[in-house]
Amino acid sequence: MNTKPTLHFCPIGIQAEGMRLERDSMGEIEVPADKYWGAQTQRSLVHFSIGTDHMPLPLYHAYGVVKKAAALVNAANGHLPSWKADVISTVADEVSSGKLDAHFPLYVWQTGSGTQTNMNVNEVIANRAIQLLGGVIGSKTPVHPNDDVNMSQSSNDSFPTAMHVVTLLELEDRLFPQVEKLVVTLQRKAAEWQDVVKIGRTHLQDAVPLTVGQEWSGWATALEDALETLRHARQGLFALAAGGTAVGTGLNAPEGFSKAIAQKIADLTGRPFVTAPNKFAALSGVDAMVRASAGLRGLAVPLLKIANDMRWLASGPRCGLGELILPENEPGSSIMPGKVNPTQCEAMVMIATQVLGNDNTITFAASQGQLDLNVMRPVILANCLHSIRILADGCHNFRIFSVEGTTLNHDRLAQYVNGSVMLVTALSPEIGYDKAAEIAHIATEHGVSLREAALQSGYLDGSSFDRLVNPLDMVGHGVAGA
Amino acid sequence: MNTKPTLHFCPIGIQAEGMRLERDSMGEIEVPADKYWGAQTQRSLVHFSIGTDHMPLPLYHAYGVVKKAAALVNAANGHLPSWKADVISTVADEVSSGKLDAHFPLYVWQTGSGTQTNMNVNEVIANRAIQLLGGVIGSKTPVHPNDDVNMSQSSNDSFPTAMHVVTLLELEDRLFPQVEKLVVTLQRKAAEWQDVVKIGRTHLQDAVPLTVGQEWSGWATALEDALETLRHARQGLFALAAGGTAVGTGLNAPEGFSKAIAQKIADLTGRPFVTAPNKFAALSGVDAMVRASAGLRGLAVPLLKIANDMRWLASGPRCGLGELILPENEPGSSIMPGKVNPTQCEAMVMIATQVLGNDNTITFAASQGQLDLNVMRPVILANCLHSIRILADGCHNFRIFSVEGTTLNHDRLAQYVNGSVMLVTALSPEIGYDKAAEIAHIATEHGVSLREAALQSGYLDGSSFDRLVNPLDMVGHGVAGA
Amino acid sequence: MNTKPTLHFCPIGIQAEGMRLERDSMGEIEVPADKYWGAQTQRSLVHFSIGTDHMPLPLYHAYGVVKKAAALVNAANGHLPSWKADVISTVADEVSSGKLDAHFPLYVWQTGSGTQTNMNVNEVIANRAIQLLGGVIGSKTPVHPNDDVNMSQSSNDSFPTAMHVVTLLELEDRLFPQVEKLVVTLQRKAAEWQDVVKIGRTHLQDAVPLTVGQEWSGWATALEDALETLRHARQGLFALAAGGTAVGTGLNAPEGFSKAIAQKIADLTGRPFVTAPNKFAALSGVDAMVRASAGLRGLAVPLLKIANDMRWLASGPRCGLGELILPENEPGSSIMPGKVNPTQCEAMVMIATQVLGNDNTITFAASQGQLDLNVMRPVILANCLHSIRILADGCHNFRIFSVEGTTLNHDRLAQYVNGSVMLVTALSPEIGYDKAAEIAHIATEHGVSLREAALQSGYLDGSSFDRLVNPLDMVGHGVAGA
Amino acid sequence: MNTKPTLHFCPIGIQAEGMRLERDSMGEIEVPADKYWGAQTQRSLVHFSIGTDHMPLPLYHAYGVVKKAAALVNAANGHLPSWKADVISTVADEVSSGKLDAHFPLYVWQTGSGTQTNMNVNEVIANRAIQLLGGVIGSKTPVHPNDDVNMSQSSNDSFPTAMHVVTLLELEDRLFPQVEKLVVTLQRKAAEWQDVVKIGRTHLQDAVPLTVGQEWSGWATALEDALETLRHARQGLFALAAGGTAVGTGLNAPEGFSKAIAQKIADLTGRPFVTAPNKFAALSGVDAMVRASAGLRGLAVPLLKIANDMRWLASGPRCGLGELILPENEPGSSIMPGKVNPTQCEAMVMIATQVLGNDNTITFAASQGQLDLNVMRPVILANCLHSIRILADGCHNFRIFSVEGTTLNHDRLAQYVNGSVMLVTALSPEIGYDKAAEIAHIATEHGVSLREAALQSGYLDGSSFDRLVNPLDMVGHGVAGA
Repeated sequence: MNTKPTLHFCPIGIQAEGMRLERDSMGEIEVPADKYWGAQTQRSLVHFSIGTDHMPLPLYHAYGVVKKAAALVNAANGHLPSWKADVISTVADEVSSGKLDAHFPLYVWQTGSGTQTNMNVNEVIANRAIQLLGGVIGSKTPVHPNDDVNMSQSSNDSFPTAMHVVTLLELEDRLFPQVEKLVVTLQRKAAEWQDVVKIGRTHLQDAVPLTVGQEWSGWATALEDALETLRHARQGLFALAAGGTAVGTGLNAPEGFSKAIAQKIADLTGRPFVTAPNKFAALSGVDAMVRASAGLRGLAVPLLKIANDMRWLASGPRCGLGELILPENEPGSSIMPGKVNPTQCEAMVMIATQVLGNDNTITFAASQGQLDLNVMRPVILANCLHSIRILADGCHNFRIFSVEGTTLNHDRLAQYVNGSVMLVTALSPEIGYDKAAEIAHIATEHGVSLREAALQSGYLDGSSFDRLVNPLDMVGHGVAGA
Repeated sequence: MNTKPTLHFCPIGIQAEGMRLERDSMGEIEVPADKYWGAQTQRSLVHFSIGTDHMPLPLYHAYGVVKKAAALVNAANGHLPSWKADVISTVADEVSSGKLDAHFPLYVWQTGSGTQTNMNVNEVIANRAIQLLGGVIGSKTPVHPNDDVNMSQSSNDSFPTAMHVVTLLELEDRLFPQVEKLVVTLQRKAAEWQDVVKIGRTHLQDAVPLTVGQEWSGWATALEDALETLRHARQGLFALAAGGTAVGTGLNAPEGFSKAIAQKIADLTGRPFVTAPNKFAALSGVDAMVRASAGLRGLAVPLLKIANDMRWLASGPRCGLGELILPENEPGSSIMPGKVNPTQCEAMVMIATQVLGNDNTITFAASQGQLDLNVMRPVILANCLHSIRILADGCHNFRIFSVEGTTLNHDRLAQYVNGSVMLVTALSPEIGYDKAAEIAHIATEHGVSLREAALQSGYLDGSSFDRLVNPLDMVGHGVAGA
Repeated sequence: MNTKPTLHFCPIGIQAEGMRLERDSMGEIEVPADKYWGAQTQRSLVHFSIGTDHMPLPLYHAYGVVKKAAALVNAANGHLPSWKADVISTVADEVSSGKLDAHFPLYVWQTGSGTQTNMNVNEVIANRAIQLLGGVIGSKTPVHPNDDVNMSQSSNDSFPTAMHVVTLLELEDRLFPQVEKLVVTLQRKAAEWQDVVKIGRTHLQDAVPLTVGQEWSGWATALEDALETLRHARQGLFALAAGGTAVGTGLNAPEGFSKAIAQKIADLTGRPFVTAPNKFAALSGVDAMVRASAGLRGLAVPLLKIANDMRWLASGPRCGLGELILPENEPGSSIMPGKVNPTQCEAMVMIATQVLGNDNTITFAASQGQLDLNVMRPVILANCLHSIRILADGCHNFRIFSVEGTTLNHDRLAQYVNGSVMLVTALSPEIGYDKAAEIAHIATEHGVSLREAALQSGYLDGSSFDRLVNPLDMVGHGVAGA
Repeated sequence: MNTKPTLHFCPIGIQAEGMRLERDSMGEIEVPADKYWGAQTQRSLVHFSIGTDHMPLPLYHAYGVVKKAAALVNAANGHLPSWKADVISTVADEVSSGKLDAHFPLYVWQTGSGTQTNMNVNEVIANRAIQLLGGVIGSKTPVHPNDDVNMSQSSNDSFPTAMHVVTLLELEDRLFPQVEKLVVTLQRKAAEWQDVVKIGRTHLQDAVPLTVGQEWSGWATALEDALETLRHARQGLFALAAGGTAVGTGLNAPEGFSKAIAQKIADLTGRPFVTAPNKFAALSGVDAMVRASAGLRGLAVPLLKIANDMRWLASGPRCGLGELILPENEPGSSIMPGKVNPTQCEAMVMIATQVLGNDNTITFAASQGQLDLNVMRPVILANCLHSIRILADGCHNFRIFSVEGTTLNHDRLAQYVNGSVMLVTALSPEIGYDKAAEIAHIATEHGVSLREAALQSGYLDGSSFDRLVNPLDMVGHGVAGA
């Protein structure tokens, strides 16, 4: 049946009840009559109802792009009738838009190649296409899930391709904007407080002063660096396995297919995807995902540190450091009335630990590839998208509900700076480390001010002290440091 | 209002549309009118809409037990009117049964103490109780979420208590039966194949023979040992924080409350819960959860190894080891017709990597406790229950769909045993290691059988060889090993 | 040569220069003439000179016990002439005592079964025995490294046996005493400060009071629990693989050998070692080591938390929490004169992170066993012994140089308790959570004392306040909590 | 004493016995008279004798560069007399050359800032300089460890600087050459075997063919990609903290010092070091080390996979896959004569697990920075250098002793290709997936050849089959894949 059938547009949905028969190379099996999926999806549902972890929906949306691109390339090179490519494209767009989400029920815990999810996509597209063409759902005619929708493809190259596409899109569209906004907010605060002197703390012990703005500029820079690393980690994701088919040789894909489909996916997404230079590496490894995950954990590490610093600096209100005042969002205790806690910081710290654990899963799974295919892909993908999602949402909420509303306790800041003994450091270049240390010990042991201790030591007079020890002179020049 | 009001039974559900006002110590806030939750739940929803990870429902079911136990103890010691205890108990049972699941919407990423989830439970119970008593929902009268439902409790002791209860129940009721059944299946197979000789492989290289049953007995024993360790890891979970309240001192809980509520929870669940001997440790640490997670990863490790062994031993069908024949469940490839893959093994391996990653998250989070409270509890709980769930379901499916239907390729097994050079080991005690090694080298280099090589060496004659080298004599005495 | 040769006692050491020839089944190879090791050790040195990680010496000391036990059992059952057993025992004692340490040069990165280390032990014992018997070193006569020293053994069972023995001994003899002493010190401090009231902190925010002794009792309990778990983790280590030989069947070991050697090792070490009930599990898995490592990380987690708490509570001296005063051990800064840091706490935290990383290596490696033998043993053993060593030494130094000398800043403690708003919690049972919250908000917003806020609220008078809000009444009854 | 003293050259070494007194701000302490170190080093030795992990020697060699650069810059800007800079430079060169290694005894487990190691360097340089100048060792005159050697520096910026320098040098000089050589070897083998057809294996099950060269090209590409990522990870290491001094403000360092010392270090090492743009980030975080470690684990992952693949493909010799023949380096068993094992692969796999564990330690430690300084630096540095060292040595030995000598078992390769059913895939484009699947099932169930099954099916005749199913036509065009 290669004469062009008429496309009857009809809304998404199958008006049927009960079960219908579908079949694959293992025989017949009943599937819910109102679902587009076919036999292989159903077998997976039967065998892999494990937990509550479903394949992330964004994967299917990306898979729609891959299937559309394949159909267009297959038509362009004459292997697929153009009317078939048209209807596959139409349905693939429906997949990408999320309109067919209800027909992708599979779990993360399935075949390690993602074949069942690929077949889920193939089956849904085929049956929806058949419906649009007025055919019999489940008949595989006139659009066949393997021969047509999966033409020139294997799960072994299409699933990795969809993984790269979805991960890239989630990074760029979901995560990066949130990190960028958080960086901007931190920078704005840093600029605002550029000249507010505070005591530095190293080893948690009083140190020489810096400004609040300088401290915050360090946080902003750490996130910027992490974001820059993550941007670079995209390089590997741009390289697509498509065209390698089953083991990387490209069997059953026509000459030139690899480059053409990568270019088509690039066109459809507006991102610089290219064909992977070595398909054997692309199928047998998932190293680009490991690098992406390294970037994600590289973001989690400074986020954890910043959230920790913020809640410590805001500790109190009366029995802690109390330099920062975080917004009060919710009552903090079911028993202690009036208590308010740094909950956004806590959520961020928990998110960071999850990202680190996910990264462990990804790295370990990546190492478990065997011979010509890594079959740990679903768990790798699910963990990577999980990390992206909670980092993005976490950065958003952390910024909106905590960072932006943070203010300073100026009295407390000044009190610490004035009381600290470590301003003694400014004396070292003049009187040497050893004499300065003597003065510090006098102050600490006798509980006197640094100035008193300095005079008591006899090493310098009051006017020298006042000239040398001035916190405002000790914080250097601007946020970038010395 | 301490005179006993009448309890009007009405079905679960609030017949209202739009929003209603609720209030807490921070003021008023609108909540969906058809939900039982109150102001603090709503604030959490606003501030913590992060990702798609919701607090696991079994936690709420366990929390129902905790709230019921508290109410009963508070009534028994005279602090709570018995009619209040009755209605709280009634609603707590509804919570435990899952009937109020739709009213627990919070995310994992929230306050690190779980206070918001505790308040969610308090608010739902209070409002549902008020409804049953004919009061005005949201009025906190005659049942107050803090003063009544949370009486003698803090989130800081009740959340850890609910964590221990739910983890224990999930371990015992969900996971252990599945592991036990898998062990039994492995043992049955081991017994069935106790005398089927096969070649051993160490370093992946041919070694001396053992029986298939012996190999499988090793797998069963590894799982048994892991299960035994996991059983022991329950000890810490039996110790409950309840009664420590905010910081472990028991402030606002009456004398004897700790022991009484632990006993009550033990009665309600039929498990030997006791009060934690030191509440300061119970609040500031989550070490019992770390130990439980260690038990879970201790199960994941041999499961991963067994699943790996099975798929390698079943590799082929024609170009692999091919000793085992796994059930064929689904078509394995979208491009290679007729291919079938060890998908249950793959799912199990992926599950194991997830459990190891989750364990990392749990351990790291546990180490991040600060001063008098660990506020990493939601992420710890969510990961622990996740591991339990996927291990349990994974063991079930792995057993049903793969292990039980596994059969042997007897021809292949025999062929390997007969061909292996390593049977030479049996000659060592008679002729010494060095001469035996010479014979092995002759066999390997010349590609001849071991018997031929032995005769060629001149170190022994054919009848001695036949007497000494008999695979059946080389496999020892029964599944338990030497 | 089975007539008993004369034993000529001579001191350890070979008076020779240059190289001598040794041989194994692969042919001849030169070894340093003044070393006892033979051909296989030398081949390992050539092929595995990787990094600077040598097999830990305590392993060899334990291996001496295993070799002695094997010789004695082999003699007792008539397989080994008693004069051979005698000389092997004598040399094995030298190995155990550390006198032959210079002759065990191998690296961790070698064959995954530890065969090369087992052969190193066999070769050294054989050559030293030959020396004592007046034979020619390298001649394998009259004591042969494989046929005699390794009799009834394979590396596959003897290396796991030595692993269990050394791990058990290191745990019991090196680590446990240090943890116990640290617990005792913490308990002593807890008792000393049982009645010193301090402010509690949850979420780093001011909470209700407890005593310093209670806080420290929580730390002591956490370590006690960890130690108890670690003690239980020994169970798996008591089970020895010896007698399983190459693949678990016990080939070439006589009937009864397993039990006899386990009993002999128990006798020699005074610890309840037994034969592993299933040798296939014992060879193909290393799960007992994973459990031991779980115990170690279970100790690292609370140690990290305690060290963190201590340095935060000691932060300052003027701009931190400043409740604790740690001993001053060293100048803390090369630039800031007079600065002193909580360095013991920092070392402990770093040790804990190392133990967690080592635990990851161990767990991952344990999961990578294949078929009938796990060949990841050296890396597992090295990481486990590393963790034990640094935990033991770390606990020792942390106790001696920091915990024991810690004192309290009583002024600061009192000042916090008196200033905190959270004492309001004591009002809840009397006036309800909502009114108490109002009072707390008044105090915080207006910066007044809690008492002033209470009076201002009109909810209670001064005498009621004084009756209800008394820190000493809020800390419960003793260190064990409510 | 700022008049230029005469420099008396004398060999390294102090001719003294017993102990001498040294002093620092805490008072006097005895140090071994024949060592150059001073009071602070000695205090560290007393307080931190933990385990056997010493600060890696390459760190000191890099520190020599940092101290020399500082002295030269301090002289150039007029803060340090040029004769002092000269003698400090001279001694710093001795440090860098390793001649003073015996005087750097400190442990990894020390203060988290590395201050004690910085002071160790300062003290050794000062005392050796004093010796060269004819002064009294321990007198701090005329060269003072703090005021002169540490001028314009804090440990807080100089230790991070030395960390970056040593890590960069170790990566470039030690690791990269070994990885490059391994890649070249793999590529050479890939080219050599470019046309040797073999069966592909996905999910460990027989798949369509590829060539041995293609498979090896995938390995080479994976390592190339990992190396490329690691090269990029150097970017962060080029940014140096020097000039930030104690908290990032540059207190006590003159204007322009940061840029000048970075330039000087660049000149001395020939690498493009620059000053870190934000010193607050540089001191409070160690993110560049986390990224370097991510690169290292990104190398470990494919190394583990390649080593695993190699040993599986070489499994046998008679009862495994047996496609590859690895060099025979050592006897493999103490009990099984003639056994040879893939020991280099095993060592590589163990190394990879260590690198992954080390990476966990590094990442966790990096997240534990607090406020203005990360004090987890020694453990981070030690683990990073450890990973570099064992990866470098491991790649070297793996290549020399295993990869280079690997050969093919051509008979086995051909036998698998000819027997595999999965060649059926080539029929799909002609007869469709469903009919092809039928043929595959016939072949497998009846145990007949694919050709027989095809004819039996009636879907195509013998000549069509022979035209379509030709392994040589199925492997695509060259190593780069489709």
